[in-house]
Amino acid sequence: MAPPQDALFARVALIGIGLIGSSLAHVLRRDGLAGHIAVAARSDASLDTATRLGLADSTHRDPAEAVAGADLVVLCTPLGAYTEVGAAMAPGLAPGCIVSDVGSVKQSVIRDLGPLLPDGVHLVPGHPVAGTEHSGPEAGFAELFDGRWCILTPPDGTDASAVDRVAALWRQAGMTVEIMDPNHHDQVLAITSHLPHLIAYTIVSTATDLEEDLQKEVFKYSAGGFRDFTRIAASDPVMWRDVFLNNREAVLDILGRFSEDLTALQRAIRRNEGEALHDLFSRTRDVRRGVIDANQA
Amino acid sequence: MAPPQDALFARVALIGIGLIGSSLAHVLRRDGLAGHIAVAARSDASLDTATRLGLADSTHRDPAEAVAGADLVVLCTPLGAYTEVGAAMAPGLAPGCIVSDVGSVKQSVIRDLGPLLPDGVHLVPGHPVAGTEHSGPEAGFAELFDGRWCILTPPDGTDASAVDRVAALWRQAGMTVEIMDPNHHDQVLAITSHLPHLIAYTIVSTATDLEEDLQKEVFKYSAGGFRDFTRIAASDPVMWRDVFLNNREAVLDILGRFSEDLTALQRAIRRNEGEALHDLFSRTRDVRRGVIDANQA
Repeated sequence: MAPPQDALFARVALIGIGLIGSSLAHVLRRDGLAGHIAVAARSDASLDTATRLGLADSTHRDPAEAVAGADLVVLCTPLGAYTEVGAAMAPGLAPGCIVSDVGSVKQSVIRDLGPLLPDGVHLVPGHPVAGTEHSGPEAGFAELFDGRWCILTPPDGTDASAVDRVAALWRQAGMTVEIMDPNHHDQVLAITSHLPHLIAYTIVSTATDLEEDLQKEVFKYSAGGFRDFTRIAASDPVMWRDVFLNNREAVLDILGRFSEDLTALQRAIRRNEGEALHDLFSRTRDVRRGVIDANQA
Repeated sequence: MAPPQDALFARVALIGIGLIGSSLAHVLRRDGLAGHIAVAARSDASLDTATRLGLADSTHRDPAEAVAGADLVVLCTPLGAYTEVGAAMAPGLAPGCIVSDVGSVKQSVIRDLGPLLPDGVHLVPGHPVAGTEHSGPEAGFAELFDGRWCILTPPDGTDASAVDRVAALWRQAGMTVEIMDPNHHDQVLAITSHLPHLIAYTIVSTATDLEEDLQKEVFKYSAGGFRDFTRIAASDPVMWRDVFLNNREAVLDILGRFSEDLTALQRAIRRNEGEALHDLFSRTRDVRRGVIDANQA
Protein backbone atom coordinates (compact mmCIF):
# COMPACT_ATOMS: atom_id res chain seq x y z
CA MET A 1 0.00 0.00 0.00
CA ALA A 2 1.40 3.41 -0.93
CA PRO A 3 1.65 5.84 1.97
CA PRO A 4 -0.37 9.07 1.82
CA GLN A 5 1.75 11.95 0.45
CA ASP A 6 2.03 13.60 3.85
CA ALA A 7 2.57 10.49 6.00
CA LEU A 8 5.48 10.97 8.41
CA PHE A 9 6.28 7.24 8.15
CA ALA A 10 5.58 4.69 5.43
CA ARG A 11 5.14 1.80 7.85
CA VAL A 12 4.93 1.97 11.64
CA ALA A 13 5.20 -1.23 13.66
CA LEU A 14 3.70 -1.10 17.15
CA ILE A 15 4.97 -3.92 19.32
CA GLY A 16 2.37 -4.20 22.09
CA ILE A 17 -1.06 -2.57 21.91
CA GLY A 18 -2.02 -1.62 25.47
CA LEU A 19 -3.10 1.83 26.70
CA ILE A 20 -0.12 3.70 25.20
CA GLY A 21 0.24 1.65 22.03
CA SER A 22 -3.44 1.93 21.16
CA SER A 23 -3.49 5.64 21.97
CA LEU A 24 -0.54 6.18 19.66
CA ALA A 25 -2.33 4.17 16.96
CA HIS A 26 -5.35 6.47 17.35
CA VAL A 27 -3.06 9.48 16.78
CA LEU A 28 -1.44 7.86 13.72
CA ARG A 29 -4.89 7.20 12.28
CA ARG A 30 -6.41 10.56 13.17
CA ASP A 31 -3.61 12.51 11.54
CA GLY A 32 -2.70 10.08 8.74
CA LEU A 33 0.89 9.83 9.98
CA ALA A 34 1.52 6.25 8.85
CA GLY A 35 1.04 4.64 5.46
CA HIS A 36 0.59 1.31 7.18
CA ILE A 37 0.21 0.35 10.85
CA ALA A 38 1.50 -3.13 11.69
CA VAL A 39 0.59 -4.32 15.19
CA ALA A 40 2.33 -7.17 16.99
CA ALA A 41 1.11 -8.65 20.27
CA ARG A 42 1.34 -11.93 22.13
CA SER A 43 -2.39 -12.43 22.53
CA ASP A 44 -4.84 -13.01 19.70
CA ALA A 45 -7.49 -11.22 21.73
CA SER A 46 -5.44 -8.00 21.70
CA LEU A 47 -4.78 -8.30 17.98
CA ASP A 48 -8.47 -8.92 17.28
CA THR A 49 -9.38 -5.87 19.35
CA ALA A 50 -6.85 -3.74 17.47
CA THR A 51 -8.37 -4.86 14.17
CA ARG A 52 -11.92 -4.30 15.37
CA LEU A 53 -11.04 -0.75 16.51
CA GLY A 54 -9.48 -0.04 13.12
CA LEU A 55 -6.03 0.49 14.63
CA ALA A 56 -4.13 -2.12 12.59
CA ASP A 57 -3.60 -2.58 8.86
CA SER A 58 -1.91 -5.87 9.63
CA THR A 59 -1.53 -7.94 12.81
CA HIS A 60 1.32 -10.27 13.71
CA ARG A 61 2.33 -12.72 16.40
CA ASP A 62 5.93 -12.58 15.17
CA PRO A 63 7.65 -9.23 15.84
CA ALA A 64 10.14 -9.82 12.96
CA GLU A 65 7.20 -10.01 10.57
CA ALA A 66 5.64 -6.84 11.95
CA VAL A 67 8.83 -4.78 11.67
CA ALA A 68 9.71 -5.96 8.14
CA GLY A 69 9.82 -2.89 5.91
CA ALA A 70 8.97 -0.53 8.78
CA ASP A 71 10.70 2.85 9.00
CA LEU A 72 9.51 3.24 12.60
CA VAL A 73 9.14 0.59 15.29
CA VAL A 74 7.72 1.57 18.69
CA LEU A 75 7.95 -0.87 21.59
CA CYS A 76 4.84 -0.49 23.73
CA THR A 77 5.25 -3.59 25.89
CA PRO A 78 6.22 -3.75 29.58
CA LEU A 79 9.96 -3.16 30.04
CA GLY A 80 10.56 -6.77 31.06
CA ALA A 81 9.72 -7.96 27.53
CA TYR A 82 12.25 -5.76 25.72
CA THR A 83 15.07 -8.29 25.58
CA GLU A 84 12.84 -11.01 24.19
CA VAL A 85 11.10 -8.68 21.73
CA GLY A 86 14.42 -7.15 20.67
CA ALA A 87 15.94 -10.55 19.89
CA ALA A 88 12.79 -11.68 18.07
CA MET A 89 12.45 -8.60 15.86
CA ALA A 90 16.15 -7.97 15.10
CA PRO A 91 16.26 -10.20 11.99
CA GLY A 92 13.37 -8.24 10.45
CA LEU A 93 14.78 -4.73 10.97
CA ALA A 94 15.82 -2.88 7.80
CA PRO A 95 18.82 -0.50 7.78
CA GLY A 96 17.70 3.09 8.44
CA CYS A 97 14.75 1.98 10.58
CA ILE A 98 14.13 3.92 13.79
CA VAL A 99 13.43 1.87 16.92
CA SER A 100 11.76 3.79 19.74
CA ASP A 101 9.74 2.88 22.83
CA VAL A 102 7.40 4.35 25.44
CA GLY A 103 8.82 2.80 28.62
CA SER A 104 8.98 4.63 31.96
CA VAL A 105 12.67 3.79 32.55
CA LYS A 106 15.29 4.76 30.00
CA GLN A 107 18.74 3.51 31.03
CA SER A 108 17.54 -0.09 30.95
CA VAL A 109 16.25 0.35 27.39
CA ILE A 110 19.68 1.37 26.15
CA ARG A 111 21.24 -1.45 28.15
CA ASP A 112 18.80 -4.19 27.06
CA LEU A 113 17.77 -3.18 23.56
CA GLY A 114 20.84 -1.35 22.23
CA PRO A 115 23.14 -4.36 21.78
CA LEU A 116 20.41 -6.34 19.98
CA LEU A 117 19.87 -3.89 17.11
CA PRO A 118 21.68 -4.38 13.77
CA ASP A 119 24.03 -1.71 12.47
CA GLY A 120 22.30 1.14 10.68
CA VAL A 121 19.20 0.94 12.91
CA HIS A 122 18.60 4.09 15.02
CA LEU A 123 17.65 3.69 18.69
CA VAL A 124 15.67 6.69 20.00
CA PRO A 125 14.27 5.77 23.45
CA GLY A 126 11.20 7.80 24.38
CA HIS A 127 8.85 8.31 27.30
CA PRO A 128 5.51 10.02 26.73
CA VAL A 129 4.65 11.05 30.31
CA ALA A 130 0.95 10.33 30.17
CA GLY A 131 -1.37 7.59 31.30
CA THR A 132 -4.52 6.59 33.11
CA GLU A 133 -5.26 3.79 35.56
CA HIS A 134 -6.86 1.81 32.74
CA SER A 135 -5.01 -0.65 30.52
CA GLY A 136 -5.44 -2.68 27.34
CA PRO A 137 -6.21 -1.75 23.72
CA GLU A 138 -9.75 -0.61 24.51
CA ALA A 139 -8.46 1.98 26.99
CA GLY A 140 -6.59 4.04 24.37
CA PHE A 141 -7.61 7.44 22.99
CA ALA A 142 -5.81 9.97 20.81
CA GLU A 143 -6.07 12.84 23.32
CA LEU A 144 -4.13 10.97 26.04
CA PHE A 145 -0.90 12.78 25.12
CA ASP A 146 -2.35 16.24 24.68
CA GLY A 147 -0.52 18.95 26.61
CA ARG A 148 1.89 16.49 28.28
CA TRP A 149 5.66 16.06 28.11
CA CYS A 150 7.50 13.53 26.03
CA ILE A 151 11.10 12.86 27.04
CA LEU A 152 13.53 11.43 24.49
CA THR A 153 16.87 10.01 25.67
CA PRO A 154 18.93 9.24 22.54
CA PRO A 155 22.39 7.79 23.31
CA ASP A 156 25.37 9.96 22.34
CA GLY A 157 25.96 9.92 18.60
CA THR A 158 22.39 9.05 17.63
CA ASP A 159 21.45 10.21 14.13
CA ALA A 160 19.92 13.69 14.56
CA SER A 161 17.31 13.29 11.84
CA ALA A 162 16.04 10.08 13.48
CA VAL A 163 15.58 11.99 16.75
CA ASP A 164 13.81 14.79 14.86
CA ARG A 165 11.35 12.40 13.25
CA VAL A 166 10.41 10.79 16.56
CA ALA A 167 10.07 14.27 18.11
CA ALA A 168 7.81 15.32 15.22
CA LEU A 169 5.56 12.31 15.88
CA TRP A 170 5.02 13.16 19.55
CA ARG A 171 4.57 16.86 18.83
CA GLN A 172 1.84 15.87 16.41
CA ALA A 173 0.26 13.96 19.32
CA GLY A 174 0.13 17.23 21.26
CA MET A 175 3.19 16.71 23.44
CA THR A 176 6.09 19.01 24.27
CA VAL A 177 9.29 17.13 23.55
CA GLU A 178 12.42 17.36 25.72
CA ILE A 179 15.78 15.70 25.19
CA MET A 180 17.31 14.37 28.41
CA ASP A 181 20.17 12.27 29.67
CA PRO A 182 18.76 8.76 30.38
CA ASN A 183 20.27 8.57 33.86
CA HIS A 184 18.79 11.94 34.75
CA HIS A 185 15.41 10.87 33.36
CA ASP A 186 15.40 7.83 35.60
CA GLN A 187 16.18 9.94 38.66
CA VAL A 188 13.48 12.52 37.97
CA LEU A 189 10.83 9.92 37.20
CA ALA A 190 11.76 7.90 40.29
CA ILE A 191 10.54 10.88 42.30
CA THR A 192 7.62 12.17 40.24
CA SER A 193 6.13 8.86 39.26
CA HIS A 194 7.74 5.67 40.57
CA LEU A 195 7.78 6.60 44.27
CA PRO A 196 4.18 7.91 44.20
CA HIS A 197 3.06 4.63 42.65
CA LEU A 198 5.01 2.59 45.19
CA ILE A 199 3.46 4.55 48.06
CA ALA A 200 -0.03 4.23 46.62
CA TYR A 201 0.36 0.48 46.16
CA THR A 202 1.57 0.20 49.75
CA ILE A 203 -1.18 2.23 51.40
CA VAL A 204 -3.89 0.38 49.52
CA SER A 205 -2.23 -2.90 50.43
CA THR A 206 -2.12 -1.89 54.09
CA ALA A 207 -5.85 -1.20 53.96
CA THR A 208 -6.63 -4.58 52.41
CA ASP A 209 -4.99 -6.31 55.36
CA LEU A 210 -7.47 -4.81 57.81
CA GLU A 211 -10.33 -6.79 59.28
CA GLU A 212 -13.18 -7.10 56.80
CA ASP A 213 -15.57 -4.78 58.64
CA LEU A 214 -13.08 -1.98 58.84
CA GLN A 215 -12.10 -2.53 55.21
CA LYS A 216 -15.68 -2.04 54.00
CA GLU A 217 -15.83 1.26 55.80
CA VAL A 218 -12.49 2.28 54.33
CA PHE A 219 -14.03 1.90 50.86
CA LYS A 220 -17.14 3.71 51.97
CA TYR A 221 -15.34 6.74 53.35
CA SER A 222 -12.54 6.80 50.79
CA ALA A 223 -13.30 10.33 49.62
CA GLY A 224 -11.12 11.81 52.37
CA GLY A 225 -7.89 11.13 50.45
CA PHE A 226 -7.67 7.34 50.15
CA ARG A 227 -9.61 7.37 46.89
CA ASP A 228 -6.82 9.17 45.03
CA PHE A 229 -4.42 6.42 46.07
CA THR A 230 -6.71 3.60 44.94
CA ARG A 231 -6.79 5.16 41.49
CA ILE A 232 -3.01 5.24 41.24
CA ALA A 233 -2.76 1.72 42.69
CA ALA A 234 -5.10 0.38 39.99
CA SER A 235 -2.41 0.84 37.33
CA ASP A 236 -1.15 -2.12 35.31
CA PRO A 237 0.68 -4.60 37.63
CA VAL A 238 3.08 -6.02 35.00
CA MET A 239 4.12 -2.61 33.76
CA TRP A 240 4.83 -1.40 37.27
CA ARG A 241 6.63 -4.55 38.37
CA ASP A 242 9.01 -3.98 35.46
CA VAL A 243 9.44 -0.29 36.25
CA PHE A 244 10.61 -1.05 39.79
CA LEU A 245 12.90 -3.88 38.73
CA ASN A 246 14.44 -1.76 35.97
CA ASN A 247 14.89 1.45 37.95
CA ARG A 248 15.87 -0.23 41.19
CA GLU A 249 18.76 1.97 42.27
CA ALA A 250 17.00 5.31 41.75
CA VAL A 251 13.79 4.03 43.35
CA LEU A 252 15.60 2.61 46.39
CA ASP A 253 17.51 5.85 46.82
CA ILE A 254 14.45 8.10 46.85
CA LEU A 255 12.52 5.55 48.91
CA GLY A 256 15.28 5.70 51.53
CA ARG A 257 14.96 9.47 51.77
CA PHE A 258 11.19 9.22 51.97
CA SER A 259 11.36 6.66 54.79
CA GLU A 260 13.67 8.88 56.80
CA ASP A 261 11.32 11.84 56.37
CA LEU A 262 8.32 9.73 57.33
CA THR A 263 10.07 8.50 60.47
CA ALA A 264 10.86 12.10 61.44
CA LEU A 265 7.19 13.03 61.02
CA GLN A 266 6.10 10.00 63.03
CA ARG A 267 8.43 11.08 65.81
CA ALA A 268 7.04 14.63 65.75
CA ILE A 269 3.50 13.29 66.13
CA ARG A 270 4.48 10.95 68.96
CA ARG A 271 6.24 13.78 70.79
CA ASN A 272 3.41 16.27 70.23
CA GLU A 273 5.66 18.67 68.32
CA GLY A 274 2.93 20.87 66.84
CA GLU A 275 5.27 23.57 65.62
CA ALA A 276 7.41 21.12 63.62
CA LEU A 277 4.29 19.67 61.98
CA HIS A 278 2.95 23.11 61.13
CA ASP A 279 6.26 24.20 59.60
CA LEU A 280 6.45 21.12 57.42
CA PHE A 281 2.82 21.35 56.28
CA SER A 282 3.29 25.02 55.38
CA ARG A 283 6.38 24.28 53.34
CA THR A 284 4.68 21.56 51.28
CA ARG A 285 1.82 23.92 50.54
CA ASP A 286 4.20 26.19 48.64
CA VAL A 287 5.17 23.27 46.42
CA ARG A 288 1.67 23.19 45.01
CA ARG A 289 2.27 26.70 43.74
CA GLY A 290 5.43 25.48 42.02
CA VAL A 291 3.46 22.74 40.29
CA ILE A 292 0.73 25.16 39.27
CA ASP A 293 3.36 27.60 37.96
CA ALA A 294 4.81 24.76 35.90
CA ASN A 295 1.36 24.36 34.32
CA GLN A 296 0.96 20.80 35.54
CA ALA A 297 -2.01 21.20 37.89
CA MET B 1 -35.27 39.56 62.69
CA ALA B 2 -38.01 36.92 62.55
CA PRO B 3 -36.94 33.58 61.08
CA PRO B 4 -38.62 32.42 57.87
CA GLN B 5 -41.54 30.07 58.60
CA ASP B 6 -39.68 27.04 57.34
CA ALA B 7 -36.23 27.80 58.81
CA LEU B 8 -34.73 24.75 60.49
CA PHE B 9 -33.02 26.99 63.06
CA ALA B 10 -33.85 30.47 64.34
CA ARG B 11 -30.22 31.48 64.85
CA VAL B 12 -27.14 29.56 63.78
CA ALA B 13 -23.75 30.61 65.13
CA LEU B 14 -20.76 29.56 63.05
CA ILE B 15 -17.53 29.74 65.02
CA GLY B 16 -14.84 29.92 62.36
CA ILE B 17 -15.55 30.71 58.71
CA GLY B 18 -12.97 28.79 56.65
CA LEU B 19 -13.69 26.40 53.78
CA ILE B 20 -16.23 24.27 55.67
CA GLY B 21 -17.83 27.07 57.70
CA SER B 22 -18.35 29.27 54.67
CA SER B 23 -19.66 26.35 52.60
CA LEU B 24 -22.17 25.57 55.34
CA ALA B 25 -23.18 29.25 55.41
CA HIS B 26 -23.79 29.09 51.65
CA VAL B 27 -26.11 26.10 52.21
CA LEU B 28 -27.95 27.88 55.04
CA ARG B 29 -28.47 30.90 52.79
CA ARG B 30 -29.39 28.95 49.67
CA ASP B 31 -32.07 26.92 51.42
CA GLY B 32 -33.20 29.50 53.99
CA LEU B 33 -32.36 27.14 56.86
CA ALA B 34 -31.44 29.84 59.40
CA GLY B 35 -33.37 32.89 60.54
CA HIS B 36 -30.08 34.56 61.42
CA ILE B 37 -26.46 33.58 60.77
CA ALA B 38 -24.01 34.84 63.38
CA VAL B 39 -20.36 34.41 62.46
CA ALA B 40 -17.50 34.52 64.92
CA ALA B 41 -13.84 34.55 63.91
CA ARG B 42 -10.54 35.75 65.32
CA SER B 43 -9.57 37.86 62.34
CA ASP B 44 -11.40 40.98 61.17
CA ALA B 45 -10.40 40.14 57.62
CA SER B 46 -12.35 36.85 57.76
CA LEU B 47 -15.37 38.58 59.27
CA ASP B 48 -15.29 41.31 56.63
CA THR B 49 -15.10 38.69 53.90
CA ALA B 50 -18.06 36.82 55.40
CA THR B 51 -20.09 40.03 55.39
CA ARG B 52 -19.04 40.93 51.87
CA LEU B 53 -20.06 37.47 50.60
CA GLY B 54 -23.45 37.84 52.30
CA LEU B 55 -22.78 34.91 54.61
CA ALA B 56 -23.26 36.70 57.94
CA ASP B 57 -26.20 38.60 59.46
CA SER B 58 -23.94 39.57 62.32
CA THR B 59 -20.22 39.19 62.97
CA HIS B 60 -18.46 38.82 66.30
CA ARG B 61 -14.99 38.64 67.77
CA ASP B 62 -16.44 37.23 71.01
CA PRO B 63 -17.83 33.68 70.65
CA ALA B 64 -20.15 34.21 73.66
CA GLU B 65 -21.79 37.11 71.83
CA ALA B 66 -22.17 35.05 68.65
CA VAL B 67 -23.85 32.11 70.38
CA ALA B 68 -26.26 34.24 72.47
CA GLY B 69 -29.79 33.18 71.53
CA ALA B 70 -28.56 30.56 69.03
CA ASP B 71 -30.38 27.23 68.80
CA LEU B 72 -27.46 25.77 66.80
CA VAL B 73 -23.74 26.45 67.22
CA VAL B 74 -21.29 24.82 64.79
CA LEU B 75 -17.58 24.92 65.54
CA CYS B 76 -15.69 25.25 62.26
CA THR B 77 -12.25 26.07 63.66
CA PRO B 78 -9.19 23.82 63.74
CA LEU B 79 -9.46 21.19 66.51
CA GLY B 80 -6.75 22.84 68.57
CA ALA B 81 -8.97 25.87 69.21
CA TYR B 82 -11.93 23.92 70.66
CA THR B 83 -10.92 24.24 74.31
CA GLU B 84 -10.41 27.97 74.08
CA VAL B 85 -13.55 28.53 72.01
CA GLY B 86 -15.58 26.24 74.29
CA ALA B 87 -14.55 28.17 77.40
CA ALA B 88 -15.16 31.51 75.72
CA MET B 89 -18.62 30.71 74.39
CA ALA B 90 -19.96 28.69 77.35
CA PRO B 91 -21.37 31.73 79.21
CA GLY B 92 -23.47 32.68 76.16
CA LEU B 93 -25.05 29.27 75.52
CA ALA B 94 -28.79 29.04 76.16
CA PRO B 95 -30.38 25.83 77.54
CA GLY B 96 -31.64 23.62 74.71
CA CYS B 97 -28.99 24.88 72.30
CA ILE B 98 -27.27 22.28 70.12
CA VAL B 99 -23.47 22.47 69.84
CA SER B 100 -21.99 20.64 66.86
CA ASP B 101 -18.73 20.78 64.92
CA VAL B 102 -17.12 19.72 61.65
CA GLY B 103 -13.76 18.41 62.92
CA SER B 104 -11.96 15.43 61.40
CA VAL B 105 -11.37 13.75 64.79
CA LYS B 106 -14.27 12.95 67.10
CA GLN B 107 -13.06 11.48 70.40
CA SER B 108 -11.07 14.61 71.18
CA VAL B 109 -14.16 16.78 70.66
CA ILE B 110 -16.08 14.87 73.29
CA ARG B 111 -13.04 15.00 75.57
CA ASP B 112 -12.24 18.70 75.08
CA LEU B 113 -15.61 20.30 74.50
CA GLY B 114 -18.00 18.08 76.47
CA PRO B 115 -16.96 19.16 79.98
CA LEU B 116 -17.16 22.88 79.08
CA LEU B 117 -20.83 22.90 78.04
CA PRO B 118 -23.52 23.96 80.55
CA ASP B 119 -26.30 21.54 81.52
CA GLY B 120 -29.15 21.41 79.03
CA VAL B 121 -26.89 22.06 76.03
CA HIS B 122 -26.75 19.16 73.53
CA LEU B 123 -23.37 18.11 72.10
CA VAL B 124 -23.70 16.44 68.66
CA PRO B 125 -20.19 16.08 67.17
CA GLY B 126 -20.21 15.85 63.38
CA HIS B 127 -17.82 15.29 60.52
CA PRO B 128 -18.89 16.18 56.97
CA VAL B 129 -16.36 14.14 54.96
CA ALA B 130 -15.74 16.69 52.24
CA GLY B 131 -13.11 19.24 51.39
CA THR B 132 -10.76 20.68 48.84
CA GLU B 133 -7.13 21.78 49.06
CA HIS B 134 -8.27 25.39 49.31
CA SER B 135 -8.99 27.20 52.56
CA GLY B 136 -10.52 30.39 53.90
CA PRO B 137 -13.98 31.99 53.59
CA GLU B 138 -13.59 32.70 49.86
CA ALA B 139 -13.03 28.99 49.13
CA GLY B 140 -16.51 27.92 50.26
CA PHE B 141 -19.38 26.82 48.01
CA ALA B 142 -22.74 25.21 48.76
CA GLU B 143 -22.17 22.12 46.59
CA LEU B 144 -19.07 21.01 48.53
CA PHE B 145 -21.11 18.52 50.56
CA ASP B 146 -23.21 17.15 47.73
CA GLY B 147 -23.23 13.33 47.53
CA ARG B 148 -20.76 12.91 50.39
CA TRP B 149 -21.00 11.27 53.82
CA CYS B 150 -21.55 13.06 57.09
CA ILE B 151 -20.68 11.12 60.22
CA LEU B 152 -22.29 12.07 63.53
CA THR B 153 -20.85 10.69 66.78
CA PRO B 154 -23.26 11.70 69.57
CA PRO B 155 -22.16 10.47 73.03
CA ASP B 156 -24.42 7.90 74.71
CA GLY B 157 -27.59 9.48 76.04
CA THR B 158 -27.61 12.46 73.68
CA ASP B 159 -31.08 13.92 73.08
CA ALA B 160 -32.43 12.12 69.98
CA SER B 161 -34.24 15.14 68.57
CA ALA B 162 -31.03 17.20 68.73
CA VAL B 163 -29.28 14.51 66.69
CA ASP B 164 -32.20 14.47 64.24
CA ARG B 165 -32.02 18.21 63.69
CA VAL B 166 -28.28 18.15 62.95
CA ALA B 167 -28.83 15.19 60.62
CA ALA B 168 -31.60 17.11 58.83
CA LEU B 169 -29.23 20.03 58.27
CA TRP B 170 -26.55 17.91 56.59
CA ARG B 171 -29.09 15.97 54.56
CA GLN B 172 -30.33 19.30 53.25
CA ALA B 173 -26.71 19.99 52.24
CA GLY B 174 -26.86 16.85 50.08
CA MET B 175 -25.04 14.48 52.44
CA THR B 176 -25.84 10.95 53.56
CA VAL B 177 -25.75 10.89 57.35
CA GLU B 178 -24.34 7.99 59.38
CA ILE B 179 -24.21 7.61 63.15
CA MET B 180 -20.94 6.10 64.39
CA ASP B 181 -19.04 5.40 67.57
CA PRO B 182 -16.43 8.18 67.94
CA ASN B 183 -13.55 5.77 68.54
CA HIS B 184 -14.49 3.79 65.44
CA HIS B 185 -14.75 7.02 63.42
CA ASP B 186 -11.24 7.99 64.42
CA GLN B 187 -9.86 4.59 63.36
CA VAL B 188 -11.58 4.61 59.96
CA LEU B 189 -10.57 8.18 59.18
CA ALA B 190 -7.00 7.54 60.29
CA ILE B 191 -6.79 5.14 57.35
CA THR B 192 -8.92 6.83 54.70
CA SER B 193 -7.84 10.39 55.30
CA HIS B 194 -5.19 11.06 57.95
CA LEU B 195 -2.58 8.55 56.71
CA PRO B 196 -3.00 9.62 53.05
CA HIS B 197 -2.44 13.24 54.06
CA LEU B 198 0.60 12.33 56.16
CA ILE B 199 2.11 10.40 53.26
CA ALA B 200 1.40 13.18 50.80
CA TYR B 201 2.98 15.77 53.09
CA THR B 202 6.03 13.53 53.47
CA ILE B 203 6.58 12.78 49.78
CA VAL B 204 6.25 16.44 48.85
CA SER B 205 8.62 17.36 51.66
CA THR B 206 11.14 14.77 50.44
CA ALA B 207 11.02 16.36 47.00
CA THR B 208 11.59 19.85 48.37
CA ASP B 209 14.83 18.70 49.98
CA LEU B 210 16.31 17.81 46.59
CA GLU B 211 18.87 19.98 44.84
CA GLU B 212 17.23 22.95 43.15
CA ASP B 213 17.76 21.74 39.58
CA LEU B 214 16.19 18.36 40.25
CA GLN B 215 13.35 20.02 42.13
CA LYS B 216 12.41 22.20 39.16
CA GLU B 217 12.16 19.14 36.99
CA VAL B 218 10.08 17.37 39.60
CA PHE B 219 7.52 20.17 39.27
CA LYS B 220 7.76 20.05 35.50
CA TYR B 221 7.14 16.32 35.20
CA SER B 222 4.70 16.07 38.10
CA ALA B 223 1.88 14.61 35.98
CA GLY B 224 3.22 11.08 36.50
CA GLY B 225 1.64 10.76 39.96
CA PHE B 226 3.40 13.39 42.09
CA ARG B 227 0.85 16.05 41.15
CA ASP B 228 -1.96 14.24 43.02
CA PHE B 229 0.17 14.31 46.16
CA THR B 230 0.94 18.03 45.88
CA ARG B 231 -2.78 18.71 45.80
CA ILE B 232 -3.38 16.76 49.00
CA ALA B 233 -0.30 18.31 50.62
CA ALA B 234 -1.62 21.82 49.91
CA SER B 235 -4.36 21.39 52.55
CA ASP B 236 -4.58 23.76 55.50
CA PRO B 237 -1.48 23.34 57.75
CA VAL B 238 -3.14 24.32 61.04
CA MET B 239 -6.12 22.05 60.51
CA TRP B 240 -3.87 19.10 59.73
CA ARG B 241 -1.43 19.76 62.55
CA ASP B 242 -4.41 19.54 64.92
CA VAL B 243 -5.77 16.39 63.28
CA PHE B 244 -2.51 14.52 63.85
CA LEU B 245 -2.09 15.78 67.41
CA ASN B 246 -5.69 14.88 68.27
CA ASN B 247 -5.81 11.45 66.63
CA ARG B 248 -2.29 10.47 67.56
CA GLU B 249 -2.82 6.88 68.66
CA ALA B 250 -4.89 5.78 65.66
CA VAL B 251 -2.55 7.56 63.23
CA LEU B 252 0.59 6.07 64.77
CA ASP B 253 -0.97 2.61 64.69
CA ILE B 254 -1.85 2.68 61.00
CA LEU B 255 1.42 4.43 60.19
CA GLY B 256 3.29 1.56 61.86
CA ARG B 257 1.48 -0.96 59.66
CA PHE B 258 2.14 1.12 56.56
CA SER B 259 5.86 1.39 57.33
CA GLU B 260 6.14 -2.38 57.74
CA ASP B 261 4.43 -2.94 54.40
CA LEU B 262 6.64 -0.37 52.71
CA THR B 263 9.77 -2.01 54.09
CA ALA B 264 8.60 -5.38 52.75
CA LEU B 265 8.08 -3.84 49.31
CA GLN B 266 11.49 -2.18 49.45
CA ARG B 267 13.03 -5.55 50.27
CA ALA B 268 11.23 -7.20 47.32
CA ILE B 269 12.60 -4.56 44.95
CA ARG B 270 16.13 -4.87 46.31
CA ARG B 271 15.99 -8.67 45.98
CA ASN B 272 14.47 -8.55 42.48
CA GLU B 273 11.36 -10.45 43.59
CA GLY B 274 9.18 -9.78 40.55
CA GLU B 275 6.49 -12.26 41.43
CA ALA B 276 5.93 -10.77 44.88
CA LEU B 277 5.62 -7.29 43.34
CA HIS B 278 3.19 -8.50 40.70
CA ASP B 279 1.01 -10.27 43.28
CA LEU B 280 0.81 -7.17 45.44
CA PHE B 281 0.07 -4.82 42.54
CA SER B 282 -2.68 -7.15 41.30
CA ARG B 283 -4.30 -7.27 44.73
CA THR B 284 -4.41 -3.49 45.10
CA ARG B 285 -6.03 -3.20 41.70
CA ASP B 286 -9.06 -5.08 42.99
CA VAL B 287 -9.46 -2.50 45.75
CA ARG B 288 -10.27 0.13 43.16
CA ARG B 289 -13.29 -1.96 42.23
CA GLY B 290 -14.37 -1.98 45.88
CA VAL B 291 -14.16 1.80 45.97
CA ILE B 292 -16.06 2.11 42.70
CA ASP B 293 -18.71 -0.30 43.99
CA ALA B 294 -19.04 1.88 47.08
CA ASN B 295 -19.81 4.79 44.72
CA GLN B 296 -16.86 6.82 45.90
CA ALA B 297 -14.83 6.94 42.68
